Amino acid sequence: MKDWVLSLTVVLADGTIIQTRQRARKSSAGYDLTRVFVGSEGTLGLVTEATLKLAVKPPHEVVAVCTFPTLRAAASAVREVASSGIQVAAVEILDEVQMRNINLAALTRLKWKEEPTLFFKFAGSDDFIVKHIAKKVGEITKRNGSSTYTFASDEAERNELWSARKAALWSMLAQRQSPTDKVWTTDVAVPLSRLPDIIELAKADIEKSGLMGSIVGHVGDGNFHTLLLFPEEKRPIAEAVVHRMVDMAIEMKGTATGEHGIGLVKRDYLEKELGKETVDTMRAMKSALDPMCILNCDKVIRMKPAQEQ
Amino acid sequence: MKDWVLSLTVVLADGTIIQTRQRARKSSAGYDLTRVFVGSEGTLGLVTEATLKLAVKPPHEVVAVCTFPTLRAAASAVREVASSGIQVAAVEILDEVQMRNINLAALTRLKWKEEPTLFFKFAGSDDFIVKHIAKKVGEITKRNGSSTYTFASDEAERNELWSARKAALWSMLAQRQSPTDKVWTTDVAVPLSRLPDIIELAKADIEKSGLMGSIVGHVGDGNFHTLLLFPEEKRPIAEAVVHRMVDMAIEMKGTATGEHGIGLVKRDYLEKELGKETVDTMRAMKSALDPMCILNCDKVIRMKPAQEQ
Repeated sequence: MKDWVLSLTVVLADGTIIQTRQRARKSSAGYDLTRVFVGSEGTLGLVTEATLKLAVKPPHEVVAVCTFPTLRAAASAVREVASSGIQVAAVEILDEVQMRNINLAALTRLKWKEEPTLFFKFAGSDDFIVKHIAKKVGEITKRNGSSTYTFASDEAERNELWSARKAALWSMLAQRQSPTDKVWTTDVAVPLSRLPDIIELAKADIEKSGLMGSIVGHVGDGNFHTLLLFPEEKRPIAEAVVHRMVDMAIEMKGTATGEHGIGLVKRDYLEKELGKETVDTMRAMKSALDPMCILNCDKVIRMKPAQEQ
Repeated sequence: MKDWVLSLTVVLADGTIIQTRQRARKSSAGYDLTRVFVGSEGTLGLVTEATLKLAVKPPHEVVAVCTFPTLRAAASAVREVASSGIQVAAVEILDEVQMRNINLAALTRLKWKEEPTLFFKFAGSDDFIVKHIAKKVGEITKRNGSSTYTFASDEAERNELWSARKAALWSMLAQRQSPTDKVWTTDVAVPLSRLPDIIELAKADIEKSGLMGSIVGHVGDGNFHTLLLFPEEKRPIAEAVVHRMVDMAIEMKGTATGEHGIGLVKRDYLEKELGKETVDTMRAMKSALDPMCILNCDKVIRMKPAQEQ
């Protein structure tokens, strides 16, 4: 998403309104303020306008779905596709727990195989090319052990195939036994080469915890999510699962969060991930732009180290 | 280039060494320090290591060269290719002055038509696809008035075709009448929709100035360069051309520099381009990270407004 933001209008802590950039797609004029504010979670300023890059919606699209005997095999297929240089518009992974929930919730018309599943989207300016790419990816998934490869190019069928991905969160919510049950969605990202490892370890850890948890993700860039369902009294168990996942990601030179952001829960990982000096540099930026700490103070970064609070 | 930088090791003004990020391709953990330091021209810290994203070198590549009756027609073809959603690996524009210089300098084996010229590079995982894209682009350039479309897929021919682009700067240097003559290369970028306008205006302005000047650029993102050749006593004329070009770019919601950076010469445009408040925000960041102003002080941003210096 960040890469699509060209320019922002931002209200600073003292009320000053700035525009971070003009509209050219490329600029090396001064510091990249756009990227300073994007993802700063409201701690550096209030974004009131955003200018986005536009892309042409590719006129041709194909969706493919394939199932694998193991989650690791699915993740390995993703890694092989990525390292082959083939351009896919999207690739999503859903584990067998997630596929079972989608069947149980009956949110889609189709009945799904309850196996680790990859969803691919291919898009381009030309029908022939898009189908050609889809076929090439089919060869890679087969080589990685997929037993099925269903693909759809007409719009109704495409939407139907993609519907399972869209239903992931709702199908998990539908499994709540009591209205007070919670679903925790969290995410990490790792270098693509470590994706099969961390997904397998995270899955084993969820199983050991006794909670219902699934794995879902836009895995093409090494990022994935877990969805954990738990009754309030088991929150510490869920928390422990999340924290172990973050620890693993950081150990693999990954990050505590690929997309969701740091917020409150993950802020103490920032130092572990990046080192105290790096967080101090962020703190200096925060102090420079919001010296009174009136903007989401202590989110993302504690302005005083934890032990002093 | 910026988009390929994942992480940096930076020595700060006080000697502290930080790493801006870990290695995952996606992260939303804290402020985007990588992008703070990339392109900061040594004013915020000293970069000592960079971790780059790697991409697979596409196994198939085609180069195409086509000539146009006018520079505007060539720029319009680029705009149409970009808005069609066709992915090109590179597109470069060279005007007829530049093509003539390349012939004169005889730096390449081929003899070129001395007309506004586009150079395209197409690349992909599949030979058939790459050729198919090249053909589609050929249809667009033809529709925009190109009279020739030469393309090469074997490596020797590709390199030969691309050689003209590589020879641009050297062929201009070869036109110096005296060893004290200078070549000034500068760049601006505008929204793609304004590219044909600014290229035409800049070219007319160079002609009016009486200097030899050519237009060269990676126009796919609205960015282009001018190369001006002048004897030292005509420096004010060259300066005036550059300044008028920057003014035009800013008026078209573009930027004083797409790639080259602000440095010293363009720093007083920063306020015109972005407003005083935005430059003040950059100044606050600079002060926070380099309070003694020991790192390239007054480059990019004057730490005191111009009139006070």
